[in-house]
Amino acid sequence: MRTPIVMARLIERKRDGGTLTSDEWRAIIDGYIEGSVTDYHMAALSMAILFNGLEPVELDTLTGCMLHSGATMDFGTWAVPRVDKHSTGGVGDKTSLVLAPLVAACGVAVPMMSGRGLGHTGGTLDKLEAIPGFRTDLSPAEARRQVEAIGCAMFGQSEAIAPVDQRLYALRDATGTVESIPLIAASIMSKKLAEGLSGLVLDVKQGSGAFLPDAVDAIELAQTMIRVGHEHGCEVVALLTAMDRPLGHACGNALEVEEAIAILHGEGPKDVTELTITLAAEMVALAGVAPDLRAARSAVEAALRSGAAAEKARALIEAQGGNPAVLDDPAVMAQAPHQVVWEAPRDGVVRRVEPREIGRAIVALGGGRRVLGDTVDPAVGFVITAEPRRIVTRGQPLATIHARDEAGVTLAREALQRAIQIGETMGELPLPLVSHRVTRNGMDLLG
Amino acid sequence: MRTPIVMARLIERKRDGGTLTSDEWRAIIDGYIEGSVTDYHMAALSMAILFNGLEPVELDTLTGCMLHSGATMDFGTWAVPRVDKHSTGGVGDKTSLVLAPLVAACGVAVPMMSGRGLGHTGGTLDKLEAIPGFRTDLSPAEARRQVEAIGCAMFGQSEAIAPVDQRLYALRDATGTVESIPLIAASIMSKKLAEGLSGLVLDVKQGSGAFLPDAVDAIELAQTMIRVGHEHGCEVVALLTAMDRPLGHACGNALEVEEAIAILHGEGPKDVTELTITLAAEMVALAGVAPDLRAARSAVEAALRSGAAAEKARALIEAQGGNPAVLDDPAVMAQAPHQVVWEAPRDGVVRRVEPREIGRAIVALGGGRRVLGDTVDPAVGFVITAEPRRIVTRGQPLATIHARDEAGVTLAREALQRAIQIGETMGELPLPLVSHRVTRNGMDLLG
Repeated sequence: MRTPIVMARLIERKRDGGTLTSDEWRAIIDGYIEGSVTDYHMAALSMAILFNGLEPVELDTLTGCMLHSGATMDFGTWAVPRVDKHSTGGVGDKTSLVLAPLVAACGVAVPMMSGRGLGHTGGTLDKLEAIPGFRTDLSPAEARRQVEAIGCAMFGQSEAIAPVDQRLYALRDATGTVESIPLIAASIMSKKLAEGLSGLVLDVKQGSGAFLPDAVDAIELAQTMIRVGHEHGCEVVALLTAMDRPLGHACGNALEVEEAIAILHGEGPKDVTELTITLAAEMVALAGVAPDLRAARSAVEAALRSGAAAEKARALIEAQGGNPAVLDDPAVMAQAPHQVVWEAPRDGVVRRVEPREIGRAIVALGGGRRVLGDTVDPAVGFVITAEPRRIVTRGQPLATIHARDEAGVTLAREALQRAIQIGETMGELPLPLVSHRVTRNGMDLLG
Repeated sequence: MRTPIVMARLIERKRDGGTLTSDEWRAIIDGYIEGSVTDYHMAALSMAILFNGLEPVELDTLTGCMLHSGATMDFGTWAVPRVDKHSTGGVGDKTSLVLAPLVAACGVAVPMMSGRGLGHTGGTLDKLEAIPGFRTDLSPAEARRQVEAIGCAMFGQSEAIAPVDQRLYALRDATGTVESIPLIAASIMSKKLAEGLSGLVLDVKQGSGAFLPDAVDAIELAQTMIRVGHEHGCEVVALLTAMDRPLGHACGNALEVEEAIAILHGEGPKDVTELTITLAAEMVALAGVAPDLRAARSAVEAALRSGAAAEKARALIEAQGGNPAVLDDPAVMAQAPHQVVWEAPRDGVVRRVEPREIGRAIVALGGGRRVLGDTVDPAVGFVITAEPRRIVTRGQPLATIHARDEAGVTLAREALQRAIQIGETMGELPLPLVSHRVTRNGMDLLG
């Protein structure tokens, strides 16, 4: 018989800067599953971790406990390398929608488990569901079979995957304990490791619209996840990318699907196309199907140019019950009744396009969630062509508002007024699209 | 209608070093009472407070909310000044048993609400209940009537008093968040203020056996409670006293009652008698019934000498259903079947008598609690005559063990072996019995 753990003593040790053993972590998570460890214990422990961090071994054990609390996708002896991408979340970031079919078209399997939007950042599942009929509620087994059949699947985290992480994440969200780098790393990695990946590319956002705005924190998270991934047999490469402005032009669910389709057709905005190709090349290189990054990038560009990526997108949409006509006519998705051009209110230079204001406005328009369980309006959002450092003249169109009603238009106008800052001088230099590349071997400065 | 509070945002603000408004504190406690704020919210918030503290205004508001969550003792226009003493807890500390009747005999009302022992420190209620028949479960109204009738009452915290504090204390005990000076201060003061006091004397222990061993922490707690008391109309004076060794000789419930009776009869050990008189003088002076401390001390000594204090003790015991014969014959209380003298195992000098070892041994003997709800054996414990810096010879009696059985004797011997450290040299200087006196006007060094 095992001695029951006294949670207060373990919490105190973490509070006082000490370390818990692997046996203690396992006992905590086992206790949390069977009920002797409660939400209030875990809330206090999470806050202590937020202040004092976790030692590497503690983090590895905790991640493993969370991973093994649920089902994993077991690809058995299937030889195709499997790679996914994870982003820490941004505004206008639709790269996932392109990456799954694009990378699959290059011969790499992509079992892509995504989340819903919460707060000011959008979620891939909400975007996918803007496509009529598209089902995201695949079971882990269904997702695995689809990956084996067509090379990719895009689906939500079922209750079967890392249930302890899901419960703990909801608790942290309610108790102000989200912003702990080791707890973020454990949460993300326990889910990603459940996908049975051989590699993972991280898109770690930095800048005012990012979850962790500061590059130092973003790099620490990247390094932490790289280490945890390696310990669990999954190589991780991270890129630090710009989220001091929205990515691409479209912000809002259906609008982002439309822009993702444009990228697949080689007609997307320059920044989001470039980031998509860069991330895809990292995924292809990490899978080992191309000898180096340069060759991987060529393969990715060829898959876009040849239409292979678009064809894979068609197969993906069909496999998951969506209407593939969306690839040729985005108007099969819901359209906002009010589409209003927003013009520059004065001559000047665009100093900033603040992503948080845009993200919050989408939520206010009904296109995002205040709380889990809110329904999402796929049609609303913005197409913003204003770019930092661009000189504009009064009356020049800078954005289009897509709203459900007049009240939405008014609200959206006010948000654009705050978000698109026009002044006399250039303002701060925008962040490089990709500033750092972090691997287990070190960090390269790119931007 | 009030906007519901979003606890996560408030917890985050406290976590990040910010301040909550009085309205926010009231909303939190109201929410905790009606259920929208849960134990896990309060656990995370308590841990954030443990790291970041509370501003004075926050602490005042929180204390007030906890106080007003329950009943208070309303003495109306009754003119007799009311003073209590609170100790942060120690081993062998039976001063409360003497102080209530002694100070009441000096014309000051003492509504004394006490706790039970938990961990290595004893509790006044457990000691009182060693007296056959003694009832401690007076309601606040019963206690008030008894105080008005005979000048003192000694009772437990009923569920009616500061229920939010009781719930929060149990939560903090389970989540490693006890050791926060502002939360300790709020907890103690919300209960003491419910007694309708005009003044409060704090006995803040320092040294290895104290809850806060370090004098700096002990002084910070004293100053915090003095300030909170003043804000709520209750003047507080604090003494820092020694808990690097047990107080007096007797440790254990019935044994401590016996020693308290000895003090009332002027026959107690020197240290505990002196501390009792010092604390009583502070209480009498604070009540304003003596012009200064010197006069107060004279009044206290007179009440002991004249037998007035012992007579008041008789009235108190009778009023609460106890057998007053205990005052003349302590053997009316339970006696331990095994009473064994423990002798110095070698020649040398007593370097330390470690109170934590003694306190833990009492718990192990059955005389204390591991968890609330444990029953307590009143008879077991120690009478320790060994004193630091005393030269001893092998075979000299240094203590008497009072145990229920042979196993207890063995265990107690081992504990004494660890607790009473005999060496070649003197060891560290013991702490002064009373080292500092802290009031709202500053701090005097006494020891």
